[in-house]
Amino acid sequence: MKFIIKNTLFTAIVSELYKICSTKSLLPILSGIKIEANREGIVLTGGNSELFIEKTIPIQINEETVVEVHETGSVVVLSKHFMNLLKKLPDDIEISSDNLQSVLIKSGDIVTRMNGLHAADYPQLPKIEILHSVKLNFNSLKEVIKQTIFAVSKSDAKPVLTGVKMEFGNNKLTCIATDSHRLSRKEIEINFTEASHSIVVPNKSLTELLLLKESSFATVQISIGPNMIVFSTENTNLYSVLIEGNYPNTGSLIPEGFVTEITMDTKELISGIDRACVFSEEWKHNNVHLAVIDNSILKITTNSVGIGTIEEHQRISKVNGNPAMDMTFDGRFLLEALKGIQEEQVTISFGGMMKPAVICPKNDNSYVQLISPLRT
Amino acid sequence: MKFIIKNTLFTAIVSELYKICSTKSLLPILSGIKIEANREGIVLTGGNSELFIEKTIPIQINEETVVEVHETGSVVVLSKHFMNLLKKLPDDIEISSDNLQSVLIKSGDIVTRMNGLHAADYPQLPKIEILHSVKLNFNSLKEVIKQTIFAVSKSDAKPVLTGVKMEFGNNKLTCIATDSHRLSRKEIEINFTEASHSIVVPNKSLTELLLLKESSFATVQISIGPNMIVFSTENTNLYSVLIEGNYPNTGSLIPEGFVTEITMDTKELISGIDRACVFSEEWKHNNVHLAVIDNSILKITTNSVGIGTIEEHQRISKVNGNPAMDMTFDGRFLLEALKGIQEEQVTISFGGMMKPAVICPKNDNSYVQLISPLRT
Repeated sequence: MKFIIKNTLFTAIVSELYKICSTKSLLPILSGIKIEANREGIVLTGGNSELFIEKTIPIQINEETVVEVHETGSVVVLSKHFMNLLKKLPDDIEISSDNLQSVLIKSGDIVTRMNGLHAADYPQLPKIEILHSVKLNFNSLKEVIKQTIFAVSKSDAKPVLTGVKMEFGNNKLTCIATDSHRLSRKEIEINFTEASHSIVVPNKSLTELLLLKESSFATVQISIGPNMIVFSTENTNLYSVLIEGNYPNTGSLIPEGFVTEITMDTKELISGIDRACVFSEEWKHNNVHLAVIDNSILKITTNSVGIGTIEEHQRISKVNGNPAMDMTFDGRFLLEALKGIQEEQVTISFGGMMKPAVICPKNDNSYVQLISPLRT
Repeated sequence: MKFIIKNTLFTAIVSELYKICSTKSLLPILSGIKIEANREGIVLTGGNSELFIEKTIPIQINEETVVEVHETGSVVVLSKHFMNLLKKLPDDIEISSDNLQSVLIKSGDIVTRMNGLHAADYPQLPKIEILHSVKLNFNSLKEVIKQTIFAVSKSDAKPVLTGVKMEFGNNKLTCIATDSHRLSRKEIEINFTEASHSIVVPNKSLTELLLLKESSFATVQISIGPNMIVFSTENTNLYSVLIEGNYPNTGSLIPEGFVTEITMDTKELISGIDRACVFSEEWKHNNVHLAVIDNSILKITTNSVGIGTIEEHQRISKVNGNPAMDMTFDGRFLLEALKGIQEEQVTISFGGMMKPAVICPKNDNSYVQLISPLRT
């Protein structure tokens, strides 16, 4: 194997892959990155037991030649040292490997020789038996994931809740995440006329998907198999396992009707809740009290024993129903839910004593979040 | 106590003090910041058992009123929560305290009440009995500290080596730091005609001194007492204990003469040594070999067992003495030493087998560094 490549481009991709490489795997080769040079360009692969990312660097980008392949072949290099080295080399680098898997990296007067591993020992990416396939705008997919992923369960007690449920059907993609104290559901329109199909994708794989850099017009092709999913863009394939198990039926959880409904400025409310959480420490002092007063003011208060109290008044744009409301929520949950809302105005519906609050963008039911109140 | 202040200004100073406040002291009050409002402005004090910083915010800065004191008084607040709160408040804030040490922080519609502590319980700053007093440019002081402090010992085995020795005498200030494997010595001219006097200042106190933000023309007044030192600028006093004990006599360590002396481009050498250290991990794989070849090339090589080798050639501007030289050093020590040098060219003198190398800016003996070679 032998090729010459622009270092900035190459290092950026090696760094992306380095982050997902296993560092504590029983298979030491998983801490490496597989480099393959072929006639079409360079293919880099990195991953761990749940997730693989395969990146192609084509010979030309925007009609500019970025790679010169002199000899095809492949090798695996230790990702951490390889990345650290690349970061400190000038821009034009030549990478080659011999039959003994010794990798030679040359850049001007700097000559580095790294021990590599046999590419044949790197796990083969599984062949996927495609059940469904769907194409959509990559940015829309990222958006719907971002608006739900924060609500997944952080505990492994119920593994299925650590993933995001993706429901394909009726020309819609619905993403749902819940940790049983709160729930986030967002649906978007897609082109999908086949029979409905639901899968649960691990939180970690989606987090990596969100980090992939693509232009805002890029299209992503989703291929769903019996136990895996592949997200493909022009030069990237992300392979992820699926989480098996029965996802709870969340359809019946979302209440209809309300006792009190308020509509307010989203950004201002976010700052207010953020301030109210100032004295909170992890899971302590996190209780935020919301009360409607004078039919037009939301009073936000927290009381952290031993530290102090915070009280703030915000104007409500519109109150519907009973204006007497006083409930307590986890401030972090409120904050994360509100941060998912991009619209200027947010509507919060309170169902009364111990019923969950429903948070939506004003006049938009495609994005619904539930938060259970706290007992005080 | 009651005053109104610009929040950005106030928060910046509270954040500076927060960093030095004890978090794990037997005296819980040391995790607080003392706030004192008097007719001249606001005085904030924070510290730990080794070091205190006292900052004054005057009523006016550049003829603009930044503080309005309505009632004098003082109180102590928990630094962490206080800082986190301030960061999330708008710009104009009113702070007041009552006889029960309850601190009220108001900003628009946001009202916060924090529990404070009695200012009388905060440790009193010691009165200093001044033995010597010297004034110099603050930036020059920072520079001489920066150029030596990295060489202090990181181990507590010999406490005196964990500080920087400051020698005042003959119109000179000489700073020396050593961990017995390397040494850094820098001298600058000051106005000091009294009898010579040496002290050892803790590394931590000097690190905080380096972080103080002052204009480049600011003057610092150094007051030295029998067991403490105070650095004073216009609005800041930094009180530090001194380290007691006999600092080793380092004068005889610096060798005269050399076997091989090379002069090279500082920045290029820094990048080369930096690259050579790429495979090093903490204390492993840190050996950097330097060899002069062909009377004009410095060959920098590292060989990290199990990972690989790096080799780089750099042009030497000038070689004096015997051009056959091949020695091994700790790469991190070389790097830290070279980074202290601001001049374009650096001169390194090798004294031969197992003798320390001497690193100086070209044609400048006011800054001298020694590094012991490694056995290989």
